[in-house]
Amino acid sequence: MKKVTVHAPGTVANLVCGFDILGLALNEPNDIMELTLIDEPVVRIINRDQYNLPTEPEKNVAGVVLLSILEKTGNKFGFEVTIEKHIKPGSGIGSSAASAAGAAVGAGLLLDSAFSTDELVQFAMNGEKLASGVKHADNIAPCILGGVSLIRCIHPLDIVRVDAPDLHVTVVHPQIEVRTSDARQILREKIYLKDAIKQWGNIAGLVTGFIKGDYDLIGRSLEDVIIEPLRSLLIPGFDEVKKGCKEAGALGGGISGSGPSVFMLSKDRNTALEVEKVMKEVYTRIGIEFHTYVTTINKEGVKAVVSQ
Amino acid sequence: MKKVTVHAPGTVANLVCGFDILGLALNEPNDIMELTLIDEPVVRIINRDQYNLPTEPEKNVAGVVLLSILEKTGNKFGFEVTIEKHIKPGSGIGSSAASAAGAAVGAGLLLDSAFSTDELVQFAMNGEKLASGVKHADNIAPCILGGVSLIRCIHPLDIVRVDAPDLHVTVVHPQIEVRTSDARQILREKIYLKDAIKQWGNIAGLVTGFIKGDYDLIGRSLEDVIIEPLRSLLIPGFDEVKKGCKEAGALGGGISGSGPSVFMLSKDRNTALEVEKVMKEVYTRIGIEFHTYVTTINKEGVKAVVSQ
Repeated sequence: MKKVTVHAPGTVANLVCGFDILGLALNEPNDIMELTLIDEPVVRIINRDQYNLPTEPEKNVAGVVLLSILEKTGNKFGFEVTIEKHIKPGSGIGSSAASAAGAAVGAGLLLDSAFSTDELVQFAMNGEKLASGVKHADNIAPCILGGVSLIRCIHPLDIVRVDAPDLHVTVVHPQIEVRTSDARQILREKIYLKDAIKQWGNIAGLVTGFIKGDYDLIGRSLEDVIIEPLRSLLIPGFDEVKKGCKEAGALGGGISGSGPSVFMLSKDRNTALEVEKVMKEVYTRIGIEFHTYVTTINKEGVKAVVSQ
Repeated sequence: MKKVTVHAPGTVANLVCGFDILGLALNEPNDIMELTLIDEPVVRIINRDQYNLPTEPEKNVAGVVLLSILEKTGNKFGFEVTIEKHIKPGSGIGSSAASAAGAAVGAGLLLDSAFSTDELVQFAMNGEKLASGVKHADNIAPCILGGVSLIRCIHPLDIVRVDAPDLHVTVVHPQIEVRTSDARQILREKIYLKDAIKQWGNIAGLVTGFIKGDYDLIGRSLEDVIIEPLRSLLIPGFDEVKKGCKEAGALGGGISGSGPSVFMLSKDRNTALEVEKVMKEVYTRIGIEFHTYVTTINKEGVKAVVSQ
């Protein structure tokens, strides 16, 4: 029986000044999923981790993605999916996007690559809708494509792959809960034009820095004057971590997704490890449990192996 | 006696979604200036055009730039400058920036290249301050550097040269007056975050399109959801011109600077000429006098020749 084994990577969305439009894929952690086609037109979910996520497909992120694919293809067959999550739900590094993108890519391969990348992203966004109430693509796109993805426009969908030089990414996940509703409510509906101008200078600088491989420009452009000043209030230790990491040599960074994880970009692995030390020191002192990753940008996105 | 002859090009600032941060230089029109050093520590201005601009240096754009250079260098000598303007003041294609940038570059060469590019931009911004009340650099920087300039940050000044593919630029200057105060007052102090997100998706897309030479991406990204809907109200025929030019094959475009000129980018000269026809047709029908330019991006910026 045809089977697809999928590794779906964690991702960093809302990339500093690129709120809602820019994300990157990480080489670690990865969710592992196995998908098979079944005769019955249903979605069967088997969890192989400790997170007790729902197994009713319409309540499960991977489930709703697979249901949307079944609906699109006329309910002629079904999917069984085994999910082993390593990206903790609620961590802010694209846990739901990995489930959604992994399911979409895996199903597409079982159906002999029936879908374009844009279609896979569209299917996977149904999972984001379930998880956060909003169809957004800045985790999904880098998860599927790898590297740095720009969502120039969400409707109609326009995804642009942005080249980036080698970068080391340090992530700390302080084990606190930031409720999506709080992260959203803290934002203002309106912002100052003068702040928006600073932000679009920075996003243009960041993208130029990525494409040109200009690390200094990347560092100067990693500044968010609109979202971070508000959302960072929900993350204990944020200012201290950011300051310490930059002193340790990080190019810069910020909140991953809507938090609580915080990420920093560095030019080399040694700096990324020094940055990790700072993160560990701050959260140990504050007394909040945490988990760290020191990794690099994943340039291929979801990896999938088909076996018979 | 050492003399510098300067050709200072017109520029398009506020490049659609790049309000206040992105500008490009044109190959036409150009102001022509001649500068010489004089013994007396004063600035002497001689106009050789029909615009009757002030000759008191503190009321003249080139004059204040040269005065700021004299002040910086200790008032040990002076400048005489002859100005032949071809870029009509108030046209929106960087007339004041050409005077200011031309004066700064010319003076720098007379002083044996005593200043860095950033210093030249800083001196020249004194001219913009006189002309519009605000020190902005998105005309000055492309005028001096050529090509497309990103002003990532104005304070501290951070200018980034953005590579761009060959582009043909069609400009129409409808001979109406848009007062800077009106163009400024019509803007709102606050904007919707959701509009700002669209804008930073587009500016990131535009810069990526320029650097990659991706004409389709440039075209899709040439969209301004914040400034243009307001300022275009001050330019009769704007919507019609824009629609017609895009139908004629232009990649896109918008208001040049704060208007009234309107510019369009095209991939080839034939399209740029078709675009010019549309512009001429609209303003002839509306009954507003106009002037058009069909040109290309100036990649070198201010040209200066030193003679003894």
